[in-house]
Amino acid sequence: MTKSDNPNVKSIKHMAFAVRDAEAALATYARFLDVPADTEITHFPKSGNKVALFDLGGIEYQLCQSTEKGGRFDAWIEERGAEGLHHICYEVDDIDAALAHAQKQGASLRECKACKKFGSHAHPEGWVAFLDNDAGGIEIEFMQVYTPAQLKAWEEGGAEAV
Amino acid sequence: MTKSDNPNVKSIKHMAFAVRDAEAALATYARFLDVPADTEITHFPKSGNKVALFDLGGIEYQLCQSTEKGGRFDAWIEERGAEGLHHICYEVDDIDAALAHAQKQGASLRECKACKKFGSHAHPEGWVAFLDNDAGGIEIEFMQVYTPAQLKAWEEGGAEAV
Repeated sequence: MTKSDNPNVKSIKHMAFAVRDAEAALATYARFLDVPADTEITHFPKSGNKVALFDLGGIEYQLCQSTEKGGRFDAWIEERGAEGLHHICYEVDDIDAALAHAQKQGASLRECKACKKFGSHAHPEGWVAFLDNDAGGIEIEFMQVYTPAQLKAWEEGGAEAV
Repeated sequence: MTKSDNPNVKSIKHMAFAVRDAEAALATYARFLDVPADTEITHFPKSGNKVALFDLGGIEYQLCQSTEKGGRFDAWIEERGAEGLHHICYEVDDIDAALAHAQKQGASLRECKACKKFGSHAHPEGWVAFLDNDAGGIEIEFMQVYTPAQLKAWEEGGAEAV
């Protein structure tokens, strides 16, 4: 087997599902798939969504509901007439190297809807970037997770501090 | 936190993506996500699909293309006008217990398109069953993977032997 040459991809950081109703979707996961029914649903005003976040089978699931008509997840559902997996976030060692590699292979960058930024930029858990190239219909996000020191800097000083 | 009471779900066995062209989708995973470009694409005449199967971030991915118009994955794509994640297969310890639990919680069974069977039945890797209840738009499959002795019995005698 020949490995491709993007050694940056380490693991799946999370999978984000576009759902119409985060509470209803969470209830289904609780009933059939061993997810705690009292999982918190968090509202992110800046991103315009409500998210139920839990671990299932070793993977972080995010059930994401837009809080406004035409929002990121609502628009996705409207386009398809169905809920589904919106994107997979892959953890990488070095996001600049991962993006440079992807771009060399023909990828371009997609704007982060929450931050209105293209390419790597600081989020609460790490630096993230989106590709404008789906893989089999799934949007690709990369994240370089902060070290403990970087996380502390983010928490104290925000995006400018990391 | 209150755990729900389906202790049967162990892990994600695989994720199956509906794609228009397995070779093209595999090429994208190879270019951007460190998947071997020479991954084999296997034809399953009974199921009517071609599948590229690989491991990414510790999860088994299956990129599934229907070989006939109107086939299982083709119909799914046509409905949405987009490729995407078709189903997640969850590994369970005891498929009969997992199905009994899900049905007690209101689930019903969906027919296995390849075998025309409802509920648990023998497949090459283990017993499988599909629920007729999506979780946030994603079809749910359960699999109880064969023990080595059961796998040997399947390989020698087929479905009647396990």
